[in-house]
Amino acid sequence: MGPSDTSSLKPRDRILDAARDLFRKHGIRGVGVDAIASAADSNKMTLYRHFGSKEDLIVACLQAATREFDEFWEEIRARNPDNAKAQLADWIDRVAAGLREAVDCNCEIIAAAFQMVPDDGSALKVINEFKARQRKRLAELCRSAGVEDYELLTTTLVLLMEGARSNRQSMGPEGPSAQFASVAHATVRQFTTRKDTGSI
Amino acid sequence: MGPSDTSSLKPRDRILDAARDLFRKHGIRGVGVDAIASAADSNKMTLYRHFGSKEDLIVACLQAATREFDEFWEEIRARNPDNAKAQLADWIDRVAAGLREAVDCNCEIIAAAFQMVPDDGSALKVINEFKARQRKRLAELCRSAGVEDYELLTTTLVLLMEGARSNRQSMGPEGPSAQFASVAHATVRQFTTRKDTGSI
Repeated sequence: MGPSDTSSLKPRDRILDAARDLFRKHGIRGVGVDAIASAADSNKMTLYRHFGSKEDLIVACLQAATREFDEFWEEIRARNPDNAKAQLADWIDRVAAGLREAVDCNCEIIAAAFQMVPDDGSALKVINEFKARQRKRLAELCRSAGVEDYELLTTTLVLLMEGARSNRQSMGPEGPSAQFASVAHATVRQFTTRKDTGSI
Repeated sequence: MGPSDTSSLKPRDRILDAARDLFRKHGIRGVGVDAIASAADSNKMTLYRHFGSKEDLIVACLQAATREFDEFWEEIRARNPDNAKAQLADWIDRVAAGLREAVDCNCEIIAAAFQMVPDDGSALKVINEFKARQRKRLAELCRSAGVEDYELLTTTLVLLMEGARSNRQSMGPEGPSAQFASVAHATVRQFTTRKDTGSI
């Protein structure tokens, strides 16, 4: 969600879009409120009226990014209703697509976590609540897909996904992150065939 | 390697130690050369004499961190000579220990990657060369341990490790990163038992 055609947006939304765009491009620490206000065709006074501080603006950006992820899960459910295995495969492919395109992939949430310092209380809280919610949904999917050791599979997939995002950020889309889908599908296969004793 | 008892060190080393310590604590963007010079009991002029710019200092810090990792591999080899499977298990346990203790774990390299912006040319280069070297060593270990699909296992372990480090940074040592060892050992087991056709 770049700030393209933001002319019709309200000042608050323009500032939010500009901030997310600039934070993605230059990092949270590398962008000042002046640059954000200017990119949003606004001014610092308006920025501070809507967002009390740069920290509050960072939190608002993270919250906007996490809200977009709810739509992601809705789409997964809608495409393969009542088929958890297909939903799990779809989840992997969508995460992989996000890694390739780096669009709406919420990389910014992961990346932001790395730019935080210990006193970034509310921003870190948003990130951790987001991660906990994602994990719960994924674990539910793994369980519904009939995986006996679904907690271990969930942790494996979460670490693989975060690792792929981390790696993409440093080594680009052609690095090991490009293999996320094959690695994750193989992992799911190993978990589903290993203990396929018909007990599900 | 904190800057403890740095009084006997030369100015260049004191500056390097102080920079690494401050970068770890406050992020690369959050620390200025003044703070580094002051923490090193030195001054800005000396800092610039040894390191031409803050960017050069960042690169030197990353190089120092990557050099320490060579010792890590030497220890692994020395502890279980001629036993690749034991070395691989040891690698997992050492990465896990690093995640718990966050000491000498080279998290700073991964963390630094997230604070980079696209024009951080030489710093990103150090990070990527480091990652490529680590990967090569790990792949060699997986191959020697008799894993048929050793490239896929290597990618899986690399992504798991980077994911665990990423997750540790945002969620702390009690989060999913604490399960890195059990996840990684299970992954190795699956790769070694799955195709155990005696062809090795």
